[in-house]
Amino acid sequence: MRIAIDMDEVLADTMAVQLKWLNDQYGHRLTPETVRGGDLYDFIPPRQGSHLMEVLRQGDFFADLPLMDHSQTVLERLAEKHEIFIATAAMEFPGSFGPKFRWLARHFPFIDSSRIVFCGDKGILSADVLIDDTPRNLARFEGHGVLFTAPHNVNVTEYARVSGWHDIDAMFA
Amino acid sequence: MRIAIDMDEVLADTMAVQLKWLNDQYGHRLTPETVRGGDLYDFIPPRQGSHLMEVLRQGDFFADLPLMDHSQTVLERLAEKHEIFIATAAMEFPGSFGPKFRWLARHFPFIDSSRIVFCGDKGILSADVLIDDTPRNLARFEGHGVLFTAPHNVNVTEYARVSGWHDIDAMFA
Repeated sequence: MRIAIDMDEVLADTMAVQLKWLNDQYGHRLTPETVRGGDLYDFIPPRQGSHLMEVLRQGDFFADLPLMDHSQTVLERLAEKHEIFIATAAMEFPGSFGPKFRWLARHFPFIDSSRIVFCGDKGILSADVLIDDTPRNLARFEGHGVLFTAPHNVNVTEYARVSGWHDIDAMFA
Repeated sequence: MRIAIDMDEVLADTMAVQLKWLNDQYGHRLTPETVRGGDLYDFIPPRQGSHLMEVLRQGDFFADLPLMDHSQTVLERLAEKHEIFIATAAMEFPGSFGPKFRWLARHFPFIDSSRIVFCGDKGILSADVLIDDTPRNLARFEGHGVLFTAPHNVNVTEYARVSGWHDIDAMFA
């Protein structure tokens, strides 16, 4: 089976770093719980959102993201049985191409670089399954979409859902 | 119809710049005609090939590539009738992500950035047609492959062939 896997919020805990940056920068006390059910930008003033976007655009932000729990071990096991592609958008923040590519090579060395795809529209992917935290991406994908739980998508009901890498392990083992 | 289009040797005359660099650097008199029927690296000593690879890896090389004749006008016309994606490999030269992305935005502003795909394995593309100069890419692609003539592929006979953008215009008008 060919499984395409999103990077931000699925392999990498991009949210944690964004919350920490906002808390440090602006004295918020944001946690994954306080931003549940909406887009992160809905919980902060527009000017702070623009500032965060500016920081993301520079790309360095993506160089040192923490891993989602168990993503390495489960993905390595999955890669023995299935054809794994990592599909990540970087078009909004072109400075992130290099840092994302290097981050993936460092943490997931068992995924060949030819299996990394940067694409803004996941409708272009030819795969059986896409695991992604963004409902919009799953809606455009032609195969079977699996929603990876993130604060912003807790109220979405249209897709099969996994709430972490142990769930993925159970689903595709 | 969804048409995926390769960048190097199809939209951009990457070969011209490589030949010029080799001629300037090493005093060759290479032309597209003298490197027909084989990989460029077959026509130069391995050490010069390594040097070229090193220069490509830095990525600046891709910032100012010349356009293939008529690529802008024909692609703009095609984009009115078809869903166009640009699919280009940058994994071998990660420094080229940014320069390639900016080159595409500058010369093909009518292609939305979400329609740009960086992928090493074109088998991941879900499209009706792929236009590419590399037979290996067409072999992995699941849709209809169209070979764009380049010096290295003149002896390949397995695919429908176009020898320039006027041919593409005639094929998909």
